[in-house]
Amino acid sequence: MRALRVDGLTELPAPAGDGEALVRVVLSGICTTDLELAKGYLGFRGTLGHEFVGVVEEGDLAGTRVVGEINAGCGSCGRCAAGDSRHCATRTVLGIVDRDGAHADYLRLPACNLIPVPATVSDVAAVFVEPLAAALAVLERCPIAPGQRVCVIGDGKLGLLIAMVLRDHAPVLVGKHPHKLALAGVESTLLDDAVTLGRVFDVVIEASGSATGFELALALLVPQGRLVLKSTFHGTTPIDAARIVVEEVTVIGSRCGRFAPALALLETGGIAIGPLVSETLSLGDGERAMQLAAEPGMLKVLLAR
Amino acid sequence: MRALRVDGLTELPAPAGDGEALVRVVLSGICTTDLELAKGYLGFRGTLGHEFVGVVEEGDLAGTRVVGEINAGCGSCGRCAAGDSRHCATRTVLGIVDRDGAHADYLRLPACNLIPVPATVSDVAAVFVEPLAAALAVLERCPIAPGQRVCVIGDGKLGLLIAMVLRDHAPVLVGKHPHKLALAGVESTLLDDAVTLGRVFDVVIEASGSATGFELALALLVPQGRLVLKSTFHGTTPIDAARIVVEEVTVIGSRCGRFAPALALLETGGIAIGPLVSETLSLGDGERAMQLAAEPGMLKVLLAR
Repeated sequence: MRALRVDGLTELPAPAGDGEALVRVVLSGICTTDLELAKGYLGFRGTLGHEFVGVVEEGDLAGTRVVGEINAGCGSCGRCAAGDSRHCATRTVLGIVDRDGAHADYLRLPACNLIPVPATVSDVAAVFVEPLAAALAVLERCPIAPGQRVCVIGDGKLGLLIAMVLRDHAPVLVGKHPHKLALAGVESTLLDDAVTLGRVFDVVIEASGSATGFELALALLVPQGRLVLKSTFHGTTPIDAARIVVEEVTVIGSRCGRFAPALALLETGGIAIGPLVSETLSLGDGERAMQLAAEPGMLKVLLAR
Repeated sequence: MRALRVDGLTELPAPAGDGEALVRVVLSGICTTDLELAKGYLGFRGTLGHEFVGVVEEGDLAGTRVVGEINAGCGSCGRCAAGDSRHCATRTVLGIVDRDGAHADYLRLPACNLIPVPATVSDVAAVFVEPLAAALAVLERCPIAPGQRVCVIGDGKLGLLIAMVLRDHAPVLVGKHPHKLALAGVESTLLDDAVTLGRVFDVVIEASGSATGFELALALLVPQGRLVLKSTFHGTTPIDAARIVVEEVTVIGSRCGRFAPALALLETGGIAIGPLVSETLSLGDGERAMQLAAEPGMLKVLLAR
């Protein structure tokens, strides 16, 4: 089968058994994390991709269209026993940690990670379950009370999804690209003007993945405000730690979300996924797709089979 | 009167009136923040010092021995109205922000900032009310449940006080100096060996004021653990922000605490202050006292009048 790995597109045997479900991938999405992994983030060397929809090839779920939770836990530690493998210490993560990913013709995941996709959710929407779950995870880690003022920094795919998910909190979205900012359906401000918004936000969500975004977030927060960090990126960020102390800011790291609420939200049609897709290429054009995905102004690039 | 300013010891007129209480300082303590201010932190140019005990010279409280809350708020904003001037946007801060401090013969503070010191609390203990309040503030910002594992990084004055305050939570104190570590009365580990403690702590309190301390804290925390930042220092710290995201760490800035609970704790005699004092010099030797306070291995240096 074809597989888009950290070092390029290659031919590989389909992944071997060992009791996990075999999934034929129908569509997968390139995430900024894939681009970071290709640059050396986490030292991952395998097949990229963790956003997908596919069809189960064998076993109880054979023929079912599914998405899959990307963290595969050991199943026996305290975290796994509590039903949350996202922080199992020995977990593998699809296309990120010790497990080949979704930019291939086939992948394997434990059957318990798979979730059937309702017929009313399109393939394109289903690929967004993973990033949408990550957007919803903001509220899991940082509940927002009515009346609290919210700012989202970053008009990339994740920033847009977060702004959409938080629409009821009337967030201000900050980014560099007017055409992207317009997609979220919320108030927006260009990055260069953002500091003039003032120190008025109770919650700022940093989804730009840049040190500048972190600094801006600190400049927009009220004292004792909360800064949610969403982006994973390679290397260290210079941070004014004294500012965190003096203003008594709380910085909250947030990563993966749960799939079921994200699927439920897509079923309602409340999130307009279509405009978030910039390009769809075939898996055979995977290397070019990665280059496209890295271009400024680009949103989601999908890989069809 | 004599005043120890950022640029050295000098003679100044006693501070002028404008409705605030005049306090004759009896004893003041040199804080690491004073050393940072002298290096340029916050751009402060006035008289240093924010830890003191003194006697009110005039007005209703005349003759009363007092300590004083260091944040002087505007009195009318929402924060001040709620009884917490620590984050008033236009506050001044004794010896730190736009207000001359305590390393002088006299200081002024609003009368509402002053708190009488019970006769059972010695002058030396009273000077520790401010840092002890800052230590207690950890629990205000980061409540710790029974059974949670706690680590304190830093065996300086603040780290020791935090370890003492958290004694019921059986913290592990990490530092460089065996003679300091021994003072807290809790389990301790040398900094060089600390990483072998493993990723087992639910709460880590960083009070070393170094980038190394921040990095170590991240290495000791369980996933979704809480890192309390206590030290203010000059400049930026390179931080592995991806680690905060992937492990979903919460970083909690914590600064000033409330004086009343700190005074109450000193009244019980539950905190052994004496061993935390390294040297007592006269105010006239203030410049030498600042040099002494900066020496490795030194604990509190006091300035007597």
